[in-house]
Amino acid sequence: MTRLLTSRVSGSVASLGETGLIREIRRWLGRASPPPPYGIGDDCAVLPAAGGRRLLTVDPVIHGRHFDDSVPPASVGAKLLKRNLSDLAAMGGRPVAAVVALALEPRVSLAWLEGFYRGLAACSLRFGVPIVGGDVAQVDGPLVATLTLLGAQAGPRILTRTGAHAGDWIYVTGRLGGSRRTGRHHSFTPRLSEGAWLVRRRSVRSMIDLSDGLAKDVMALAPERAEPALEPAAIPRNPGSSLAAALGDGEDFELLFTLAAGSSLQEFARAWRRAFPATRLTRIGRFVPAGLLPPGALKLSEYRGYEHLRT
Amino acid sequence: MTRLLTSRVSGSVASLGETGLIREIRRWLGRASPPPPYGIGDDCAVLPAAGGRRLLTVDPVIHGRHFDDSVPPASVGAKLLKRNLSDLAAMGGRPVAAVVALALEPRVSLAWLEGFYRGLAACSLRFGVPIVGGDVAQVDGPLVATLTLLGAQAGPRILTRTGAHAGDWIYVTGRLGGSRRTGRHHSFTPRLSEGAWLVRRRSVRSMIDLSDGLAKDVMALAPERAEPALEPAAIPRNPGSSLAAALGDGEDFELLFTLAAGSSLQEFARAWRRAFPATRLTRIGRFVPAGLLPPGALKLSEYRGYEHLRT
Repeated sequence: MTRLLTSRVSGSVASLGETGLIREIRRWLGRASPPPPYGIGDDCAVLPAAGGRRLLTVDPVIHGRHFDDSVPPASVGAKLLKRNLSDLAAMGGRPVAAVVALALEPRVSLAWLEGFYRGLAACSLRFGVPIVGGDVAQVDGPLVATLTLLGAQAGPRILTRTGAHAGDWIYVTGRLGGSRRTGRHHSFTPRLSEGAWLVRRRSVRSMIDLSDGLAKDVMALAPERAEPALEPAAIPRNPGSSLAAALGDGEDFELLFTLAAGSSLQEFARAWRRAFPATRLTRIGRFVPAGLLPPGALKLSEYRGYEHLRT
Repeated sequence: MTRLLTSRVSGSVASLGETGLIREIRRWLGRASPPPPYGIGDDCAVLPAAGGRRLLTVDPVIHGRHFDDSVPPASVGAKLLKRNLSDLAAMGGRPVAAVVALALEPRVSLAWLEGFYRGLAACSLRFGVPIVGGDVAQVDGPLVATLTLLGAQAGPRILTRTGAHAGDWIYVTGRLGGSRRTGRHHSFTPRLSEGAWLVRRRSVRSMIDLSDGLAKDVMALAPERAEPALEPAAIPRNPGSSLAAALGDGEDFELLFTLAAGSSLQEFARAWRRAFPATRLTRIGRFVPAGLLPPGALKLSEYRGYEHLRT
């Protein structure tokens, strides 16, 4: 186990100082970080010109909240990138570049940081996202690593959370629940290919990635004066996960999207299976006019997940 | 004085939770944050297509390091944006959009946060940089606010730290020293107009913004096998600042750049005065072959500033 903090000064950030640490970070990132001015080493990173709209998203990992010493640092680095890639997948985007800002105290272990950056670099090469810059700063408290991801539209349009109508069908990829318990919140693959495919299907109207749990996140797709009618038996659950876990655990990083009422559901299902034979796709319900929830539909207010930042 | 932490739950982040806090942030940002998907409220922010290369930079402000309770929160918010704008100015860029990630504990005061975001919003409107997204997450420690700035080239090229040759002249804008003592590290104006003008002058070869102090930052512009020969009497100092303060205090946020040897210095100075009659410009020395420092030139190694992250 690689601990975040060390009492040996020689193995800590304090032994290098800022300049030496940045030199090491560039070494650990290796091919994942292009030479300046396209990567670390100037006031800004320079990105080649390119057409199409751009997408921008930011998410952190924080010691004591998103990880602890039981998690390998390489997994922390990979998750930092993947949770941002999942946000990009939900708009139908492709990644362009990322920057990472680190707030850390001098006692942070260099072995831990090396693992973190090597895990980030491996993930960056796997998904083709250069790490083009960043910052290191001192904090007298828990490590906060913040990654900002720049992307571009992967297809002819982007998908947002807005666009569904009452009557539209609701679909989810994969299976839900138990992500933290089983470690899948570290091992998941962001659904970039699926997201890029879905934006090319005109009948798909809106999309989100599941991070706070289906019960909460599905509300973000709800049209005005409509509510989601989900069939309890249809919710795809991971082994060992209860219905409550599938609805409220969060960190599933699956895609939730809506298909226009009147679409050919069979044709859509066939096309999906051809494109992604190994990725489960489930129709879990539809949006109905507010107050017209059919008998047997899930009462989602009973399953709302965790509300962050409450004491 | 608005304190960062409050013991009254009703005036703290804990009283709102994440969802309520994000609603308030959107209200505080007001016109500085466009409606989704172009601003806060979707998985990513969407940015219109545009030509030219892009620039990306990230910098935080951290409680206990960059500010304390004696600083008005609006100044903290403005500085967070301005220190990133200064990095952009140093490449000859113009701002496009920014995202802000906040790591904070539930005891953080809503009055403090409102001041912070309103100060950020005012600065964002002043410099034409929409705040298009962000994140809020919980940390059991000091507040960390991380801003990532996306920019674009403002002129026909960008300037980097690389490009000077031995013999090139070294210039600095404004005056140096005493920035933290006098509060100028909060009140400064990032040199965006000056940076955009300098990239259009072909004789300007490289540029950086002064954040760690002239003695350290000038080394980033040094060509291989060359060193800076600076005249002590030429260094423009702020009132009450010693030479050591002007060289080592840091957070000046002025531009330091090099002009090709053989350029017409008089013509350059005249053109500058026409463009920026109110901004002082000083030629402070030139790069000379390593080991050939003339008598009287500054021994910069005696003035190197603070090395971050040392204990």
